[in-house]
Amino acid sequence: MTTIEAPNSAQQTLDLGPARSLVCRECGHQVPLAAEFACSECFGPLEVGYDFGTVRREDIEAGPQSIWRYRNLLPVPSTVDAHPNTDPGCTRLVRADRLAKALGVRRIWVKDDTGNPTHSFKDRVVAVALAAARELGFKVLACPSTGNLANAVAAAAARAGWESVVLIPSSLERAKILTTAVYDGALIAVDGNYDDVNRLATELAADHEDWAFVNVNVRPYYAEGSKTLGYEVAEQLGWRLPDQIVVPIASGSQLTKVDKGFRELGELGLVEQSPYRVFGAQATGCSPVAAAFKAGHDVVTPVKPDTIARSLAIGAPADGPYVLDTVRRTNGSIENVSDEEVVEGIRLLARTEGIFAETAGGVTVATAKKLIETGQLDPDAETVLLITGDGLKTLDAVQDRIGPRATVPPSAAAVREALGL
Amino acid sequence: MTTIEAPNSAQQTLDLGPARSLVCRECGHQVPLAAEFACSECFGPLEVGYDFGTVRREDIEAGPQSIWRYRNLLPVPSTVDAHPNTDPGCTRLVRADRLAKALGVRRIWVKDDTGNPTHSFKDRVVAVALAAARELGFKVLACPSTGNLANAVAAAAARAGWESVVLIPSSLERAKILTTAVYDGALIAVDGNYDDVNRLATELAADHEDWAFVNVNVRPYYAEGSKTLGYEVAEQLGWRLPDQIVVPIASGSQLTKVDKGFRELGELGLVEQSPYRVFGAQATGCSPVAAAFKAGHDVVTPVKPDTIARSLAIGAPADGPYVLDTVRRTNGSIENVSDEEVVEGIRLLARTEGIFAETAGGVTVATAKKLIETGQLDPDAETVLLITGDGLKTLDAVQDRIGPRATVPPSAAAVREALGL
Ligand SMILES: Cc1ncc(COP(=O)(O)O)c(C=O)c1O
Ligand SMILES: Cc1ncc(COP(=O)(O)O)c(C=O)c1O
Ligand SMILES: [Zn+2]
Ligand SMILES: [Zn+2]
Repeated sequence: MTTIEAPNSAQQTLDLGPARSLVCRECGHQVPLAAEFACSECFGPLEVGYDFGTVRREDIEAGPQSIWRYRNLLPVPSTVDAHPNTDPGCTRLVRADRLAKALGVRRIWVKDDTGNPTHSFKDRVVAVALAAARELGFKVLACPSTGNLANAVAAAAARAGWESVVLIPSSLERAKILTTAVYDGALIAVDGNYDDVNRLATELAADHEDWAFVNVNVRPYYAEGSKTLGYEVAEQLGWRLPDQIVVPIASGSQLTKVDKGFRELGELGLVEQSPYRVFGAQATGCSPVAAAFKAGHDVVTPVKPDTIARSLAIGAPADGPYVLDTVRRTNGSIENVSDEEVVEGIRLLARTEGIFAETAGGVTVATAKKLIETGQLDPDAETVLLITGDGLKTLDAVQDRIGPRATVPPSAAAVREALGL
Repeated sequence: MTTIEAPNSAQQTLDLGPARSLVCRECGHQVPLAAEFACSECFGPLEVGYDFGTVRREDIEAGPQSIWRYRNLLPVPSTVDAHPNTDPGCTRLVRADRLAKALGVRRIWVKDDTGNPTHSFKDRVVAVALAAARELGFKVLACPSTGNLANAVAAAAARAGWESVVLIPSSLERAKILTTAVYDGALIAVDGNYDDVNRLATELAADHEDWAFVNVNVRPYYAEGSKTLGYEVAEQLGWRLPDQIVVPIASGSQLTKVDKGFRELGELGLVEQSPYRVFGAQATGCSPVAAAFKAGHDVVTPVKPDTIARSLAIGAPADGPYVLDTVRRTNGSIENVSDEEVVEGIRLLARTEGIFAETAGGVTVATAKKLIETGQLDPDAETVLLITGDGLKTLDAVQDRIGPRATVPPSAAAVREALGL
């Protein structure tokens, strides 16, 4: 527990578990835990710093079947599961032998995050953001979003009995609008693209101090939620790190946090500190981080997105430079794939493993394929693919390619004929 | 292990775990385990009979986080998790205090089966059917379906590397067609309603002995999968039975099997044999079982369905009489709700608990509301609601009622005005 300035009260005693301070990623400046996200010295992004003490496998294994089993590694109170939240996590890690065979590699595991409450990994980050925001004294959950985050924020707020303010580009897919609106928060469509909506959110966050914009003013806490993907993969592999992992990139936050999760497990002695390689996946129509990686740059030049992988369509990715650091440090790489390949990736995963991913998942699968074909992924090593979102939310991407084999009258002969029997 | 006639071989040694025979529900006639579904004496439906031996909580708790933790209670081999399957189950049991408050009762739990691999409880029954079908010597997984079953069969077959033949009415919703077609099995649209498709399946099952129509010729095994809903609820409540449970009814199989699961747990000493009441939920536009219950009949008169709850739209429910037995024996009842109430039920659950159910879930919630308002459910007792399917698959049901609060230009002032601030 630390005493800090909370948004709406003079002083209060915070319980954010093992979290101890916010640390600037650029200059290392430390500030007390609070609703801040940019360094007062250099404007660099703040990240949560911890004092973990001893964390034991047995304690984690005895915990709930949700991300809260890792509460001693997250910026949340130890009593976090006493409050209503969506309690995501503990999704399937699927051994994908048929996919591995199709791709000509030894072993692939698919982390299927479509099993989360609103069917994307965003439930993880939002659950952590909600828990931290409650402790920080906020009363409203908010976000700018391209879809999955909107679903997760609206659902989590509904469950907690909080108000929500969700801002989306008015051009968003019907499915993602409806699946946000149904939770009955304040959903506002904005005539503009995601970058416009994001700017608007930053402006509103400054004016409304009791609104927790999960990915803006609460971002340091929110982002930590993605570490749980790394923790779960390691625990599900029997407390060891995979050799290789492929992660889709929008802002890049998730990729850097999966790596942070792996490193923490190693440092805490929960897994052996074996080497692992982190690979990034982007759609060619929005591949600023892949472009920077290939050009050998340290900074990312923003682009104007144009891809069916709309959930990954962030042209100015906040964590781009840290993604480049992570990928280079771990001897990984970053590839990008065409929209055509994205659809093929979705279909390949569905056909071989019975898992229907959204476009972001298609990006991951198609990127893995390209990394294998170009010799960047070691076919004899073991690879984990993060499938972070659900095919039901992006039906438009596949609708022109698939459908019934035939439409027939109700007769057995007609069915047999349609099947070529 | 038992020696039986298998479909494609003279004799083989079967391992279907604790299953020992098929027993006629009408006349009690017993036959060896095989791919049969109707009694040779009286044409009554066959059900799996077991010899469980001792089953201990510790062994279940030490099992995998899927329905296979209950493998010693199911007609599947003890090595079931060695074969590729979808491994559903262990979905969230959510304590729904805000919903309980809205409905004016003491305690409600929501069993959220949208977390399954294809987002409905059908993954449970199909996983058991696939495991048993493999052991029975089948090579093709098949079904007639109104949607959720189609998804589950196509996905499970893809994962197992089996061929699938899925028959659907050609009028099915676009989302349910696409989410079946993507797995790349043989999906055939039939010009006719579900009853036509079902009849066609029965005809084809007779001609193609190596096709496992999960809900026709493999139905006795398939149906057992729904017991896992009962097992999980009891385990998640800390190994005890709830006071009351509300279950949606299509064919009625699920309701009778949840009850069977509860009874088995009591008989095996895994829970105390406390009394519980089973309630059934139907949409008024397809409520033959509710009508029979209210009229005091033992048989169910078929109807022609007309409701937005299409996944429950079975006008001639195979297990109708057994549903009536179960509900009467446990002092429950059956209610039906209008399509308008179904949509309100979906919205109420979403607004209070952040869970977006399909129309079948709306039927369950709205029925619970009606049962409370009419004094049929005890408001001081604890109630479990089974939410068996996902809102993303039935967006049409809500699309005219919900949407953004406002569409605004990208300015903070415009957002504030839209929010009335
Ligand atoms: C399904 C899905 N996968 C991956 C991502 C990438 O997340 P990040 O912004 O952390 O890179 C997103 C972001 O919205 C997403 O919706
Ligand atoms: C979502 C959903 N819930 C409930 C049911 C009812 O199942 P049963 O036929 O076992 O009564 C179905 C059947 O298709 C379904 O799709
Ligand atoms: Zn700094
Ligand atoms: Zn009989």
